[in-house]
Amino acid sequence: MKAAVMREPNKPLSIEEVTIDKPGPREVLVRLKAVGVCHSDVHFWDANFPVETPVILGHESAGVVEAVGSMVSAVKPGDHVISILSPFCGTCEYCLSGHMSVCHTINREQFQRQMSEAPRLSIKGEKVGQFLNLSSFAEQILVHENALCAIDKDMPLDRACLIGCGVITGVGSVFHAAKVEPGSTVAVVGCGGVGLSAINGAAIAGASRIIAVDLSDEKLQMAVRFGATDVVNPSKVNAVEAVKELTKGGVHYAFECVGLKQTAEQAYHMMRPRGVATLIGMITPGVNIEIPGIEMLVTEKRLQGAIMGSNQFRIDFPRLVELYRQGKLHLDDMISDRIGLDGITGALQNLKDNKGTVARQVVVFD
Amino acid sequence: MKAAVMREPNKPLSIEEVTIDKPGPREVLVRLKAVGVCHSDVHFWDANFPVETPVILGHESAGVVEAVGSMVSAVKPGDHVISILSPFCGTCEYCLSGHMSVCHTINREQFQRQMSEAPRLSIKGEKVGQFLNLSSFAEQILVHENALCAIDKDMPLDRACLIGCGVITGVGSVFHAAKVEPGSTVAVVGCGGVGLSAINGAAIAGASRIIAVDLSDEKLQMAVRFGATDVVNPSKVNAVEAVKELTKGGVHYAFECVGLKQTAEQAYHMMRPRGVATLIGMITPGVNIEIPGIEMLVTEKRLQGAIMGSNQFRIDFPRLVELYRQGKLHLDDMISDRIGLDGITGALQNLKDNKGTVARQVVVFD
Repeated sequence: MKAAVMREPNKPLSIEEVTIDKPGPREVLVRLKAVGVCHSDVHFWDANFPVETPVILGHESAGVVEAVGSMVSAVKPGDHVISILSPFCGTCEYCLSGHMSVCHTINREQFQRQMSEAPRLSIKGEKVGQFLNLSSFAEQILVHENALCAIDKDMPLDRACLIGCGVITGVGSVFHAAKVEPGSTVAVVGCGGVGLSAINGAAIAGASRIIAVDLSDEKLQMAVRFGATDVVNPSKVNAVEAVKELTKGGVHYAFECVGLKQTAEQAYHMMRPRGVATLIGMITPGVNIEIPGIEMLVTEKRLQGAIMGSNQFRIDFPRLVELYRQGKLHLDDMISDRIGLDGITGALQNLKDNKGTVARQVVVFD
Repeated sequence: MKAAVMREPNKPLSIEEVTIDKPGPREVLVRLKAVGVCHSDVHFWDANFPVETPVILGHESAGVVEAVGSMVSAVKPGDHVISILSPFCGTCEYCLSGHMSVCHTINREQFQRQMSEAPRLSIKGEKVGQFLNLSSFAEQILVHENALCAIDKDMPLDRACLIGCGVITGVGSVFHAAKVEPGSTVAVVGCGGVGLSAINGAAIAGASRIIAVDLSDEKLQMAVRFGATDVVNPSKVNAVEAVKELTKGGVHYAFECVGLKQTAEQAYHMMRPRGVATLIGMITPGVNIEIPGIEMLVTEKRLQGAIMGSNQFRIDFPRLVELYRQGKLHLDDMISDRIGLDGITGALQNLKDNKGTVARQVVVFD
């Protein structure tokens, strides 16, 4: 199969012929139909986060099941599926208490297996890394069945793929992590794919005021289409003061979708007493968030992390498909461009340059 | 009436004759029977937190209602009452949603009134500050009716007073802020009056492992009497590693009852994924807690503040009295010494010296 291979940070990906293994007992081979280009891919492409090369990036994908291992029960050939980078074991204390997003068991096993056994992905015998258990910048992926969720076949896969990372990360953080209440007030700092999804989630959850915060006026315009009731551009005003003024003292829920110390601390300070700030954006390892201790105590504020929207994705994904059908989940507006495998390098560069007009660029396969 | 007056930081309090006003429409005059000496008093006595002098410290008190204002409906003369430093208005968004501990309305009003009107407390015409709306190192207090909760008359007042600050702060943080679940694991960093109460609360809530952390072996012995199943002395072992080892990866709930950056960060790091750390100890203004951003995100941990145990004290206090009667709330063991008004300076010094044997020293009036 063909894939876009990263051999060096910040260099163009090369389209190469890659050998992919046959499914093991609980594995599934999926022919991809679409994959979104996510800012997390950029973090690894530009070596902000380390990754061994050669590797195939990409992790926001949807496709059709081509072959399944002997013990697979969740999907069958022909099924339309959305992938997720965090497979779940279904047996650990986190899975059993509804928190599969922090299941480390299967992730660890998967990674160990990849390291110790014959490579699942290779180019003429050379091992190729499988990124986040997926490596979706490729025509096919080979994954654990618990990294997949089957969806109805009438759902367009170029929109479905977005649900697998950016959308679930934003919407899930609103639904599962913060549990935004109807009528409450929300601030979302950073309006990329994840931030727009958080805004969309807050609108679905019935928030009365949804304040989008971004340096780009173009992104703020998009935010309004996703449900923002107010916009704040920190290049023009003091964002914390502006949010506090709009909400008479601060929001009930703040979401940090950028991944910087400064914006995380801003999100925290935008809240009223008893507010809940959720960290969603990928922060560079080693960076600490600083919180004023006595202020947190007397105001009873909360700061928390959420990975992959604290998802229960086998339950969530079909629900999100339904919300899309009803016109409540805005996936069509999320897609700014459709490209081929050879367009990924340009798409990564666009995201790195933080061009205001880019929400999600989606690779579509014939 | 007599009171222990602070005229300079770190100097002995002087027992002086103080004039106290008559109750305004919603005020209540209480003759105190007992008042605990709390570490928060020390913070103001030693000028760690600023306070204007002359002032009467003390805020953990119980007594008998002597006179009530014309509009008072919550209590009547002869009622036995416990005081609280955080009166509630009952009408703001926080009170109406069950979070009277962050009601700022009445606190602000109270403080403004004290500043603008004739002094409620004075010595020969000289104004004396009313500390935390109470000033309980005195034979009488004059407070808003919503700073009081009536309790059954068979409850000994020298033990009841403890409920009004240290006990509700520790137990309430467990019940209301963290909502500790039966069977879960808990670490409590710092085993003074508040920490022992958090341990006691966790035991009442049915936690399966309760790990007490303190530099004093004497306090750790007390912690066991209050319900700790394990003890860790950070002067002997790495506390974070010890707690993680005892609980196979960290606790579900951590409570910081010291008020230092270092112990707050330790409490955070003692948790397993999805753990909840609650800041209870009074941290010096200006001190920031530093949290590793990406680690919080991927582990979905939570850091939160709780003031006065996120109490609903009119509901909580009678319940705590009942738990005392049943032998579940250990107030008797909390009292290390009974003293008179003239013993307060020594009691404050004992707490400042962090003597291991001191839990609560209680001033009792004849």
